[in-house]
Amino acid sequence: MPYGKVDELAINTIRTLAVDATAAANSGHPGAPMGMAPVAHVLFNKFMTFNPKNPDWLNRDRFVLSCVPYAFLYISIPAADMSIAHSCRRCDLNPFSAGHLELETVVFLVSAMPCHVNGHGCMLQYALLHLFGYALSIDDLKAFRQLGSITPGHPEAHDTPGVEVTTGPLGQGFSNAVGLAVAQAHTAAVFNKPGYDLINNYTYCFFGDGCAMEGIASEAASAAGHLQLGNLIAIYDDNHISIDGDIKCAFTEDVMKRFEAYGWHTQWVEDGDHDLEGIEAAIAKAKEVKDKPSVIKLTTTIGFGSKLQGTGGVHGNPLKADDIKQVKAKFGFDPEKTFVVPQEVYDMYHKHAADGAAAEQEWNKLFEKYGSEHKELHDDLARRLTRDLPEGWQNKLPTYKPTDPAIASRKLSETVLEAIHDIIPELISGSADLTGSNNTRWKNAIDFQPPSLGIGDYTGRYMRYGVREHAMAAMMNGMSAYGTTIPAGGTFLNFVSYAAGAVRLSSLSHQRVIYIATHDSIGLGEDGPTHQPIETLAHFRALPNMMVWRPADGNETSAAYYMALTSKGTPSILALTRQNLPQLEGSTIEKAIKGGYVALEDSSAAITLVSTGSEVGICLEAVKTLKSQNIAARVVSLPCVEVFDAQDKEYKLSVIPDGIPAMSVEVMSTLGWEKYSHEQFGLNRFGASGPYKEVYAKFEFTPEGIAKRAVATIDFYKDVKPLRSPINRAFQQLI
Amino acid sequence: MPYGKVDELAINTIRTLAVDATAAANSGHPGAPMGMAPVAHVLFNKFMTFNPKNPDWLNRDRFVLSCVPYAFLYISIPAADMSIAHSCRRCDLNPFSAGHLELETVVFLVSAMPCHVNGHGCMLQYALLHLFGYALSIDDLKAFRQLGSITPGHPEAHDTPGVEVTTGPLGQGFSNAVGLAVAQAHTAAVFNKPGYDLINNYTYCFFGDGCAMEGIASEAASAAGHLQLGNLIAIYDDNHISIDGDIKCAFTEDVMKRFEAYGWHTQWVEDGDHDLEGIEAAIAKAKEVKDKPSVIKLTTTIGFGSKLQGTGGVHGNPLKADDIKQVKAKFGFDPEKTFVVPQEVYDMYHKHAADGAAAEQEWNKLFEKYGSEHKELHDDLARRLTRDLPEGWQNKLPTYKPTDPAIASRKLSETVLEAIHDIIPELISGSADLTGSNNTRWKNAIDFQPPSLGIGDYTGRYMRYGVREHAMAAMMNGMSAYGTTIPAGGTFLNFVSYAAGAVRLSSLSHQRVIYIATHDSIGLGEDGPTHQPIETLAHFRALPNMMVWRPADGNETSAAYYMALTSKGTPSILALTRQNLPQLEGSTIEKAIKGGYVALEDSSAAITLVSTGSEVGICLEAVKTLKSQNIAARVVSLPCVEVFDAQDKEYKLSVIPDGIPAMSVEVMSTLGWEKYSHEQFGLNRFGASGPYKEVYAKFEFTPEGIAKRAVATIDFYKDVKPLRSPINRAFQQLI
Repeated sequence: MPYGKVDELAINTIRTLAVDATAAANSGHPGAPMGMAPVAHVLFNKFMTFNPKNPDWLNRDRFVLSCVPYAFLYISIPAADMSIAHSCRRCDLNPFSAGHLELETVVFLVSAMPCHVNGHGCMLQYALLHLFGYALSIDDLKAFRQLGSITPGHPEAHDTPGVEVTTGPLGQGFSNAVGLAVAQAHTAAVFNKPGYDLINNYTYCFFGDGCAMEGIASEAASAAGHLQLGNLIAIYDDNHISIDGDIKCAFTEDVMKRFEAYGWHTQWVEDGDHDLEGIEAAIAKAKEVKDKPSVIKLTTTIGFGSKLQGTGGVHGNPLKADDIKQVKAKFGFDPEKTFVVPQEVYDMYHKHAADGAAAEQEWNKLFEKYGSEHKELHDDLARRLTRDLPEGWQNKLPTYKPTDPAIASRKLSETVLEAIHDIIPELISGSADLTGSNNTRWKNAIDFQPPSLGIGDYTGRYMRYGVREHAMAAMMNGMSAYGTTIPAGGTFLNFVSYAAGAVRLSSLSHQRVIYIATHDSIGLGEDGPTHQPIETLAHFRALPNMMVWRPADGNETSAAYYMALTSKGTPSILALTRQNLPQLEGSTIEKAIKGGYVALEDSSAAITLVSTGSEVGICLEAVKTLKSQNIAARVVSLPCVEVFDAQDKEYKLSVIPDGIPAMSVEVMSTLGWEKYSHEQFGLNRFGASGPYKEVYAKFEFTPEGIAKRAVATIDFYKDVKPLRSPINRAFQQLI
Repeated sequence: MPYGKVDELAINTIRTLAVDATAAANSGHPGAPMGMAPVAHVLFNKFMTFNPKNPDWLNRDRFVLSCVPYAFLYISIPAADMSIAHSCRRCDLNPFSAGHLELETVVFLVSAMPCHVNGHGCMLQYALLHLFGYALSIDDLKAFRQLGSITPGHPEAHDTPGVEVTTGPLGQGFSNAVGLAVAQAHTAAVFNKPGYDLINNYTYCFFGDGCAMEGIASEAASAAGHLQLGNLIAIYDDNHISIDGDIKCAFTEDVMKRFEAYGWHTQWVEDGDHDLEGIEAAIAKAKEVKDKPSVIKLTTTIGFGSKLQGTGGVHGNPLKADDIKQVKAKFGFDPEKTFVVPQEVYDMYHKHAADGAAAEQEWNKLFEKYGSEHKELHDDLARRLTRDLPEGWQNKLPTYKPTDPAIASRKLSETVLEAIHDIIPELISGSADLTGSNNTRWKNAIDFQPPSLGIGDYTGRYMRYGVREHAMAAMMNGMSAYGTTIPAGGTFLNFVSYAAGAVRLSSLSHQRVIYIATHDSIGLGEDGPTHQPIETLAHFRALPNMMVWRPADGNETSAAYYMALTSKGTPSILALTRQNLPQLEGSTIEKAIKGGYVALEDSSAAITLVSTGSEVGICLEAVKTLKSQNIAARVVSLPCVEVFDAQDKEYKLSVIPDGIPAMSVEVMSTLGWEKYSHEQFGLNRFGASGPYKEVYAKFEFTPEGIAKRAVATIDFYKDVKPLRSPINRAFQQLI
């Protein structure tokens, strides 16, 4: 069916809704929706299958707004209206000045909107979600960017029905999309059977020059090409504009050639402003290409809709209501009305939504029938969608006795994976090219690989992420968001920092992902300061909704996995040693899942030693040293402060009691340990290259070094009355 | 001159030195030197100009070992010796197992060395430095990877003469090299004059698949192509091996095509093992190409030197002394001797070094003559090399009175740049595509651009880094390391985290770089949680040798720049607001450069409010609220805790005294504030999207919200005797 009047009306409805919402907010920008409306209309109405009444339907097509191409942030105005140009709310930069002067077409910003931020284009997505009938009302659009609304400044998966992943920070959405496509390919390979093409959705992603410049997106694109993800289709806006002006100031590479080098199928739609048929044909072609991801370059005209050509250098004022009206008239809408949606637009989109609902019904029937032929697979998939783990899985977790040998916690982690991978089929392990060091691979693991390479297939549950830490983390976020997998990925703890941008979004968007972070301290030895974390745990302990685990032995490692796997909305970092650790006398899984517990009690203790991971064992040795000086001490193991924080106060005070001082011991930054101790023994400097025992000795992380400081601590606090546990606080923190 | 016996001898000397050093250390690996020895020999002895007696000579050619290609980590052994294969010291992985099984040629590791780490190849560099006569003795080689040696596990610029930048973490060295080349191009453009080709050095970089996969290197390569850095030559080892085995498991892209897409000149030397003439010709050609950076792909054979072909699946044992001897014999060396350097090798290399010393002498004469013709430029360059700033520069720093208007600190930062850029010509500003938001550009700045684009030239002092935060940071490290520039680069504070890997190396390698980090809190408002830092300051405060500044007003902003610019070996992050801040009554540059000071004194105070940045002004308002409740309070501004820590105890106790409780106030994670306060008011959760004043009110960062918690704090501590300032500690931290 050729495109007609109602299509144009729909496109312009998206545009005017954006104008109204941003004007109401006096913030955000309608430019993105205005420019992207044509391709969004074609994609959503012609290609995507989804049911707005059930945004969680598994086989829906996914849409990710990675970053809104900058050109969409602008619309042009006739020369006569130059006086209404204004300065940007956020950067205080006149759009005609500085970088903007470099534009060939001088453009201006509608409303008092920021001129440069990517994810801001989420009004496009909010408008579409509303029009198609998601639980997002006209009033929600009116509350755009307001406190407490479900239409925040950047798309947040947790807040808004129909938003798949939380984006805004550049490059993340694109990389999430790769993860969504990985999860789709894997889930399809595991569950699809002859006659049951259960999982065949596509993942679509819009991205622009901002994402294209980010290293994370380069990593993810390279990985996606390698993995031959045929159901991934990315639409690249080619318009030569970034915040600093024409991209020629920083970005002159041949993006399509680069994607070809990665192994992508590439296409180019030259007139992205008008050529709806061309856009449709390109997407159709991309869907046909099954052995490669596809990218479609869409060339758009800056200032689309305007007759204005560059004049530059004009200073302006905030856009007035009159000007909004004039813009609206240009799009064929009543300039006096706001938030107008013509009924025929609702009708068309609601019909598409109804088709989607029907498709889900069909799918549900198919899935039911599948249950009769493939009961085990059916039940497995049905269970995965609840995000509950199989009953009794926790009985597989290894436990240890004090007499068991000393083992590095990275090896203990491997033992857990070996023990549970069969009973938790949704667990997908992997590593950023450190498989042998991270111990992330169970023995008979199949690699997740395109079958044509002959080294694995898509049923594989072991990911070879390559040396791409940041993309690994963002791909894991996408895999978690898909709903059928729990990703765990390894690198050295120090290089989790390379992935910080995506790790943050794991927390913010409540993804159940597990970072297996080995070589967690100066205990890695010879590799030296470039590889020895100092600030890393403080960093991630300061990140809200992140569990940082640093287990001291086998039982604590099992506890860390227990919590990581059962916390459906919280990611985890497991900080694991390279060096061997003894099995502790007082540890059990039950104690450790409280985040902190008494590893060695002594009612006559003059001090509590609070420690984590590899230092707990040394603290237990230090107790003997202190005893020889007639000083009694108790030891607390605190493998996860976030989980410990969540315990009740009475329990916490039983662990770190009033009346005696507490001293923390951890071979890295002391930052934050004041919360659990009166004094802190740590390492607020970089480490050293050498055999690890020598490095530990150099910095006095020995029984003697700990005992010496414990004595100083006891002495220092003996005149303080009352000596309160740091658990006691004057007021509660906001949460 | 054709290559002959002495060249072969030199190459094999590098190899055997590596074997001996790693054997002595029982750590590290000689594989890298063994494989790279041919290209290193050609490059160092035929092309590079340097004077080992003065590693700081400005116009020396730079060499960066970014990451040692994995193939170099292996050498092969005859099938008969398979029994001597052993497991890797670091990953406990047998080289014949798991990923290694995928190798076509089964290889083994000489000595008890790790099998997979990149920067480990630094023995190559250490051996070369020794052979050419740098201050690095045979004994230093013997102390490889030992505690306190100048030959640590990864190259550290700060420790080892002749090492230009600190590498090891993948992708950093490559990106540093781009920064070194930027600084070279800029310095040449500023100082070279007809007859005075003072600055014409090349930057050479070795990199492998590990770096090629990292996003940071993709960003830097794209930037280098855009910038047309003709004096940058990178040598890419193409050998299909990464830690997880054959790179076909994760990395199947066409790397050279990708570099072409970036705008690089590409070449391929098919036989990197033997073709010394081909290597020489390629480097010569790369030097001729002046309008593009060059990359030379060097295809090498895994297990070079071995007759063994893949057999796989054999388990092994640690390599014995006998086997080392056998390997040595194969290279034509006496199997009984260690650390042997034939005199003719020393002679050849020392002759090249002497040529380098003579070149420096010539250069010194030229520079002296330059002084007579271009005195001002001469003196400027001579001064820059001392790293001192021009006399009196600090008088240009703006100062403010309390009656001056409220201004956002990002704007205050812009005012500083505007005021000082003329007097500090080595200051190079820039932004990762947020120029208008970061306020990093002075009005008449020229962009650093290739002249052919017509939008700037290489004398330009404003960098358009593009949306490439991580590469920006690593490029700045390289620019700082070059010695003639002080780079400052902007992004949002939240996205400094994207650059964490490189920011860490700024600190570790003592680079004077400045991160201009705007939009520093929930005060950015509508952009919401994806952009609002919570954990970021805790992260970087936990990083050793990093100054984190969060100025509260204009004088503090000037103080932050004063310290950032005069601290020659410490990088800085300046956390700056989007929102306006009042000029404080009690602030001066002199007070603020102590890192913390009393902003409002009251000898009858019942509490000290300790705060930073945008919250200091709110604390001053809270004092009024408390006064209305008959409670006296004093206010401390602590713009930089690291600098405050360095003050003497008496001063610190005058700021945060004994006897009354202190409460910290900062709108982000409280982690670490326990060090400076008894109670903490902060935000240990993600922020919210909305107008910023509403967001502040939601979280109670208002005079009332602060006063309420101050009252609770006073009440809570009134029974504690003595109530010590947190400045008092039981023992000193190791530094």
